Amino acid sequence: MAQIVSFGEVLMRLSTPGFSRFEQARQLNVTYAGGEANVSTALAYWGHHTAHVTRFPDSPIGRAAAQYLHFHGVDVSHIIYGGPRMAVYFLETGAALRGSQIVYDRANSSLAEIDPKEIDWESILKDAKWFHWAGITPALSQGAADALLDGIKAARKLGLTVSGDIFYRANLWKYGKKPSDILPELTAGTDIVIANSENIKEIFGIEGNDFVESCVNLQKAYPQVKTIVDTKRTSISASHNLLRAYLWNGKELLETADTEINPIIDRVGGGDAFIAGLIHGLITFNDQQKALEFGVAASALKHTIEGDALISTIQEVEAIRQGETSGRIKR
Amino acid sequence: MAQIVSFGEVLMRLSTPGFSRFEQARQLNVTYAGGEANVSTALAYWGHHTAHVTRFPDSPIGRAAAQYLHFHGVDVSHIIYGGPRMAVYFLETGAALRGSQIVYDRANSSLAEIDPKEIDWESILKDAKWFHWAGITPALSQGAADALLDGIKAARKLGLTVSGDIFYRANLWKYGKKPSDILPELTAGTDIVIANSENIKEIFGIEGNDFVESCVNLQKAYPQVKTIVDTKRTSISASHNLLRAYLWNGKELLETADTEINPIIDRVGGGDAFIAGLIHGLITFNDQQKALEFGVAASALKHTIEGDALISTIQEVEAIRQGETSGRIKR
Amino acid sequence: MAQIVSFGEVLMRLSTPGFSRFEQARQLNVTYAGGEANVSTALAYWGHHTAHVTRFPDSPIGRAAAQYLHFHGVDVSHIIYGGPRMAVYFLETGAALRGSQIVYDRANSSLAEIDPKEIDWESILKDAKWFHWAGITPALSQGAADALLDGIKAARKLGLTVSGDIFYRANLWKYGKKPSDILPELTAGTDIVIANSENIKEIFGIEGNDFVESCVNLQKAYPQVKTIVDTKRTSISASHNLLRAYLWNGKELLETADTEINPIIDRVGGGDAFIAGLIHGLITFNDQQKALEFGVAASALKHTIEGDALISTIQEVEAIRQGETSGRIKR
Amino acid sequence: MAQIVSFGEVLMRLSTPGFSRFEQARQLNVTYAGGEANVSTALAYWGHHTAHVTRFPDSPIGRAAAQYLHFHGVDVSHIIYGGPRMAVYFLETGAALRGSQIVYDRANSSLAEIDPKEIDWESILKDAKWFHWAGITPALSQGAADALLDGIKAARKLGLTVSGDIFYRANLWKYGKKPSDILPELTAGTDIVIANSENIKEIFGIEGNDFVESCVNLQKAYPQVKTIVDTKRTSISASHNLLRAYLWNGKELLETADTEINPIIDRVGGGDAFIAGLIHGLITFNDQQKALEFGVAASALKHTIEGDALISTIQEVEAIRQGETSGRIKR
Amino acid sequence: MAQIVSFGEVLMRLSTPGFSRFEQARQLNVTYAGGEANVSTALAYWGHHTAHVTRFPDSPIGRAAAQYLHFHGVDVSHIIYGGPRMAVYFLETGAALRGSQIVYDRANSSLAEIDPKEIDWESILKDAKWFHWAGITPALSQGAADALLDGIKAARKLGLTVSGDIFYRANLWKYGKKPSDILPELTAGTDIVIANSENIKEIFGIEGNDFVESCVNLQKAYPQVKTIVDTKRTSISASHNLLRAYLWNGKELLETADTEINPIIDRVGGGDAFIAGLIHGLITFNDQQKALEFGVAASALKHTIEGDALISTIQEVEAIRQGETSGRIKR
Amino acid sequence: MAQIVSFGEVLMRLSTPGFSRFEQARQLNVTYAGGEANVSTALAYWGHHTAHVTRFPDSPIGRAAAQYLHFHGVDVSHIIYGGPRMAVYFLETGAALRGSQIVYDRANSSLAEIDPKEIDWESILKDAKWFHWAGITPALSQGAADALLDGIKAARKLGLTVSGDIFYRANLWKYGKKPSDILPELTAGTDIVIANSENIKEIFGIEGNDFVESCVNLQKAYPQVKTIVDTKRTSISASHNLLRAYLWNGKELLETADTEINPIIDRVGGGDAFIAGLIHGLITFNDQQKALEFGVAASALKHTIEGDALISTIQEVEAIRQGETSGRIKR
Repeated sequence: MAQIVSFGEVLMRLSTPGFSRFEQARQLNVTYAGGEANVSTALAYWGHHTAHVTRFPDSPIGRAAAQYLHFHGVDVSHIIYGGPRMAVYFLETGAALRGSQIVYDRANSSLAEIDPKEIDWESILKDAKWFHWAGITPALSQGAADALLDGIKAARKLGLTVSGDIFYRANLWKYGKKPSDILPELTAGTDIVIANSENIKEIFGIEGNDFVESCVNLQKAYPQVKTIVDTKRTSISASHNLLRAYLWNGKELLETADTEINPIIDRVGGGDAFIAGLIHGLITFNDQQKALEFGVAASALKHTIEGDALISTIQEVEAIRQGETSGRIKR
Repeated sequence: MAQIVSFGEVLMRLSTPGFSRFEQARQLNVTYAGGEANVSTALAYWGHHTAHVTRFPDSPIGRAAAQYLHFHGVDVSHIIYGGPRMAVYFLETGAALRGSQIVYDRANSSLAEIDPKEIDWESILKDAKWFHWAGITPALSQGAADALLDGIKAARKLGLTVSGDIFYRANLWKYGKKPSDILPELTAGTDIVIANSENIKEIFGIEGNDFVESCVNLQKAYPQVKTIVDTKRTSISASHNLLRAYLWNGKELLETADTEINPIIDRVGGGDAFIAGLIHGLITFNDQQKALEFGVAASALKHTIEGDALISTIQEVEAIRQGETSGRIKR
Repeated sequence: MAQIVSFGEVLMRLSTPGFSRFEQARQLNVTYAGGEANVSTALAYWGHHTAHVTRFPDSPIGRAAAQYLHFHGVDVSHIIYGGPRMAVYFLETGAALRGSQIVYDRANSSLAEIDPKEIDWESILKDAKWFHWAGITPALSQGAADALLDGIKAARKLGLTVSGDIFYRANLWKYGKKPSDILPELTAGTDIVIANSENIKEIFGIEGNDFVESCVNLQKAYPQVKTIVDTKRTSISASHNLLRAYLWNGKELLETADTEINPIIDRVGGGDAFIAGLIHGLITFNDQQKALEFGVAASALKHTIEGDALISTIQEVEAIRQGETSGRIKR
Repeated sequence: MAQIVSFGEVLMRLSTPGFSRFEQARQLNVTYAGGEANVSTALAYWGHHTAHVTRFPDSPIGRAAAQYLHFHGVDVSHIIYGGPRMAVYFLETGAALRGSQIVYDRANSSLAEIDPKEIDWESILKDAKWFHWAGITPALSQGAADALLDGIKAARKLGLTVSGDIFYRANLWKYGKKPSDILPELTAGTDIVIANSENIKEIFGIEGNDFVESCVNLQKAYPQVKTIVDTKRTSISASHNLLRAYLWNGKELLETADTEINPIIDRVGGGDAFIAGLIHGLITFNDQQKALEFGVAASALKHTIEGDALISTIQEVEAIRQGETSGRIKR
Repeated sequence: MAQIVSFGEVLMRLSTPGFSRFEQARQLNVTYAGGEANVSTALAYWGHHTAHVTRFPDSPIGRAAAQYLHFHGVDVSHIIYGGPRMAVYFLETGAALRGSQIVYDRANSSLAEIDPKEIDWESILKDAKWFHWAGITPALSQGAADALLDGIKAARKLGLTVSGDIFYRANLWKYGKKPSDILPELTAGTDIVIANSENIKEIFGIEGNDFVESCVNLQKAYPQVKTIVDTKRTSISASHNLLRAYLWNGKELLETADTEINPIIDRVGGGDAFIAGLIHGLITFNDQQKALEFGVAASALKHTIEGDALISTIQEVEAIRQGETSGRIKR
Repeated sequence: MAQIVSFGEVLMRLSTPGFSRFEQARQLNVTYAGGEANVSTALAYWGHHTAHVTRFPDSPIGRAAAQYLHFHGVDVSHIIYGGPRMAVYFLETGAALRGSQIVYDRANSSLAEIDPKEIDWESILKDAKWFHWAGITPALSQGAADALLDGIKAARKLGLTVSGDIFYRANLWKYGKKPSDILPELTAGTDIVIANSENIKEIFGIEGNDFVESCVNLQKAYPQVKTIVDTKRTSISASHNLLRAYLWNGKELLETADTEINPIIDRVGGGDAFIAGLIHGLITFNDQQKALEFGVAASALKHTIEGDALISTIQEVEAIRQGETSGRIKR
């Protein structure tokens, strides 16, 4: 049985080759990705038994998507088949001063049209230890939001640790609800929140003079939240970024140094790799600082790999965490 | 102004390279195609001023689709931008005894969600001579069906020749109407119908002991229909087909010999190329037999070309029509 | 637990793209394949829980090979890691009157250097129903031959059905033993043998005036052998083959009609797909004739798919078995 | 009718993939490009109606070239078909301290062998507002030089703004004339000149202690010249450049800051994109400084795009002009 | 020193990938080929020391061309560097009833502009045994024609066997001479002529009721001509041909059976491979019939290989000559 | 006859495309490379007659490897055919903080199993001036070590200059000998040694407080060693390196400035290109400082070129040596 379970939409990713613009591409590279699934994928490569829950159309495309996750080591036995279609996103990879560009085609996806009853959370989460969700899921539809709430409730009931990436895309919420209608209840059942001060203000109406004050105030309102994590990206160009992270554990603010990435091969999924690294660290190390650093190292490494998901060994990430960023040949 | 105007959905075509199965493909070839647009494309290469009317999302993907048709010479100035998404179809190309496989993802496309008022048919068709439609459009939605009916009415009013490919996919009709609810009124305004006896029976409830009798009976009920055309494909394998065509002009049944195609490079769009060839022939030649043969030659040639659309010169098609199928090198 | 277990070497397959000669290729397509693993792969796509047992080097290449089989649905949890290297084969795909060409580099592979004690057959086969082996394995080394014999003995003890593809490459046997030294003992524990009259004569010294007589004589000497199966390939060219099969069940000779394949996309693995189809048929149908036909249909379909392994659904194979070989588009 | 008309040779561009050397490439990427056509292409993407005038062989290659420009939105209806051949250039893309390398094969091109009478300039320029030329055209042949002079005269007569890129390749002039024989008369009819002090000295024999003095002296001799523009490139490596520009308007010297480009994806056409941006700015903004900055932004963006021509929206360039060079993902 | 020397133009071959039309290709495959060089290439793979004489521009492109021939084993030390440009040809590969299409861009090539004095024939041919030429060379220019005549004279003087492929493209002769002005003198010094009755009539004005009579009459006029060879191609489609050959040795007409090729991978260079096979056979076997068959086998095999030149072993050709055309896998 | 002869293993290099990880690659780029052969390749492009001695399997793969070296201008006539297999290495190219990764599969290669008597060194080296070896060869097997020692002895006897890259991979030595058992005798016959202080200590047990002292002490023990050379690489990331070199000539320590390489296209073979440049410099210039700088320039340029070997002209390297690293376009 899976130790770590993630839930969320998986999209077919169609990216232009090299640095081609959409107008130029006559071929598209195809992978399958989603924020929460990316977390499970990275963790699976490190030896964790992870499962991803989502809903795919019952078609060769839906099956190819599941097979793709399976290829990367994620347990796909809890995926539900049904509904109209696979969500899609188109990616054009930028360079230098031209940013990458993403076009979504995710409306009416099989997951958006889910009936929450299709998922038997208690059975799925029975022997698991961790449940991960993100703020995009409740933006998709009432059904997706309800299914997620059911999942969090079951996780709480079964004693799992729950992590939530409180990130949402404002322009996704089209079914009548606002982030502030839904995210508070989800957050109430969550132990580890990935969020920055702005999110905390917009979603919960909770302010603070700085990140720590926002966190303190959030924890007052949501006592289940033990840990709040945030990353800071300095974007010198589409090809050159610096990355660091912060963690508030209710007592102190932990912080990492900047890690430099130049050149960036694939920017997408960098945040998900950070979360995967953080989860791995929190599960494996008895050291939050080291876990936070492992997250940043995982995220940095992700930027050098094509596709949304981090494909790596623990040793590779740990070496970067320890500062081995010289990129020498390994033989 | 365009001489020939077509109307219908255009889909992003994502095909696996070579003969790869969906499971194997990590790259997909991308073109844009649709039955009616394929007709306009083939005709544009022969020097006709053709325009295609459809609706695309106002996004880089929608604009790339229009640019693709523009590349092939089709006037895209009447395309409407709006609505949620581009329709998509996935294609896996078969060989020998393995047939090609198509998976559609066309629900909720921008065209399906059209408001008929968005199209100003009289302005578009003002100086045109020919209007072409197909039976898939009214299957998409009430809006698409209404928009098409408006187009046919405008064409009739302005004195255009109207051709209709009375082909529909039974499983597409999901908005509450049946083919027999809609297609009769559309056919009533159509001069040239592409259909076989089975279609005629299913859609109109009109029977006949053979194709000619079905045609005669159809013409009794729909006096505007002057010409009925059908093709017959003998499929020896996915790589080897024979093709012939029939035309009933109210007086006599014209017929072509079989044209052999071996190997088939790309089977999709073969029927559309036939219609393009037929339209070209009827416009250009004063000879229905020759027009029918030109249609078969165009269709056969299409099978040797990647993509849905026939890219050719008149000379190339005419040479095949005259029996030059030996495939010798041209220098 | 796996229902069907196969054992044998898996090689990295490096094939020239298209029809390039070795001299021309600057890129090689990479997959992983082996006769017995191909059987498990095809069966996995049809929903059987299959596991493959082999030995890979403990390196990124060994892990990539295992991940490749895992991708195709084969249980790789019993693969042993160790030894010097991955076996490799190079493939140049022929066409028309030029045959494909294979160059092996399999000496000193990790499997060849196996210590039979590394495999705990009883644990692996505990809940399985079927064990499959081929005559190439005992050609590799004494260790591989011993490991295979252990596997067959364990399978017998646990009551599995055992199938053996009594095919060997005469020039592989380089460690001092001859096929006739080893294969008889392996065959003695086998229920279903894939072999032709020539194999039977060369390996066992058993002759017959025809296939049936050879089979009858083989069964006299090896009473465990219930079924003997053979295929006949008519090779018109590298691109055009006919395929049929024979099955002797001790009572009667079953036989299929020829199935035509033209053009062949990838010839390699055709025999393995036949065995997979036969095993599926024997497990699933209560009808040996149908099982034999299913094997031929599976083999024919394999020839249209790139790579050694058949990727298909049961429905696709069954349709071909029933004679639907016209290759029409499926939508 | 076109607002902006450009004239000049278009070459087939055959570039090695990635960073391959000529010796390594077994495939070449093919596009079609030329300095003046690149200007029209960039402007077409920004919504200007641009037309390019040139001469192509009447062959599938000539037609493919025209279709390529048409694809990018340039009006190709004034292209003349005839003459012996398409000019070609071969490109090897450099990186780091290895510069890109270009090999021309443009002798005896269809444009070089033009008879000036083939172009009916008054008809082409009738409703246009802008005519653009470059110094390479008169280097090709007497016919090309004469045709260009006719174009400039017609533009003057019809009141168009004329811009000229006074850049020439010294080693191109092989038909007996020198730059100083021809360029002065062309410049005399030009409003906006792209040139640096060295060009001004070499072509016109006009010196100055600095750029402004050269400009002042040029304007004295050529009173039609209202504006002189120059760019300065700091080349840190083939992958890393800084770019700035200067504009003398007869009164003051305008200047931009450096824009950094790292890494460069495709260096070719950077100057043409600058001119396109400048023309767009001068037409659209009532602000020369902003126009100059728009030119630099357009040029910088071009360096991130494969091919000679800038494919972009106005918004993308404007964002860079305003300093948004962080390359963040756009969703 | 080379045993076999060929002389003629080598062109850069730019072919569309797969079966793409010129309009569709964004990449072109690049090789270098020419009728006479193709002969030397095929012979080099069979172990003959062959040298090709031609003239290339002194540029990276010219050197890449020479390196390409060198790669295939041809001695390129006698190639002359100079002149304006590399000849080019564009190839679109057809299939089924669509023939391949070639567009030449060979005017003003470096070879066409050769000064015959640049070649020191006596030094080049000193130790050689065979000289091969074709009828396209004298069509290029007076210089090329003169250089060829010098070569044939030197070969005669030094006692070489001379073979000439009396094939010419009528539309190439643009410098004022006609085939009948030049080819007779070249033929007068030639031992083995590849020609059919039509060529013999058109070039020499020599008629005959059949091939043998034409040959007899040709030999009367040109007593040096000992052998006349012709091939006959039955073109069922661009993908399916039959091939046979005839040889008149002054006494009897030798003839081969048809060899079937289906599918054809690359049609171009089929005739050159025949000549290579014939030369190999005449040099190696003491049996004209066998030599003729070896030529047909070589030609047939060439049709299965991408590029103009036959890449093969003697064993492969000999096997086909002996009727092994079943295309079975070689391991 | 070759002037410069190198000896050592050549491996098939299979590299993932772009920056793909091993898990992601479905295609591998194939070239052939080895440290010593890379030296000969680079020198061949500069016009030196170089020959490489190695042993390849007598198979299409072995012949393709030889043809690859031949393509790059290296004389392959002394290559020996025989033995079991081609050595292979797999390469995954890193970027930014992810280093490249190499997996070797070289055990039991044809060279490792060489019988020293197979090489007739005196015949091969007869007219040569330079012999180059590296420390990996004696690590392969006793046979390879003996063959190398024979080569060095023959070179000494014939008066050649001998250069040795005293680099070895500690984990390669598996046949019972240690580097310190073998390398001293090889070094004793060598004029120019590439080594750093650590190598000198580990192999010879010779220490020094700095590089110069190590060199002085090495020369005392090995008086044949006239020159000791070392490079220093500063690895900022896998994409960004600085490179410099040192040369001790017995009297003074020569040193170059750092050359910056950013971005790195292909890191592998950088050291071999340095040695090639150094050898060229020592042969061509009467100036050790210039030779050392030429080596660094060659190495830097190599990093911008795909594949192990430097493909360049002397002019390109010399320009970099003179500080022209701005990477401007060459036309």
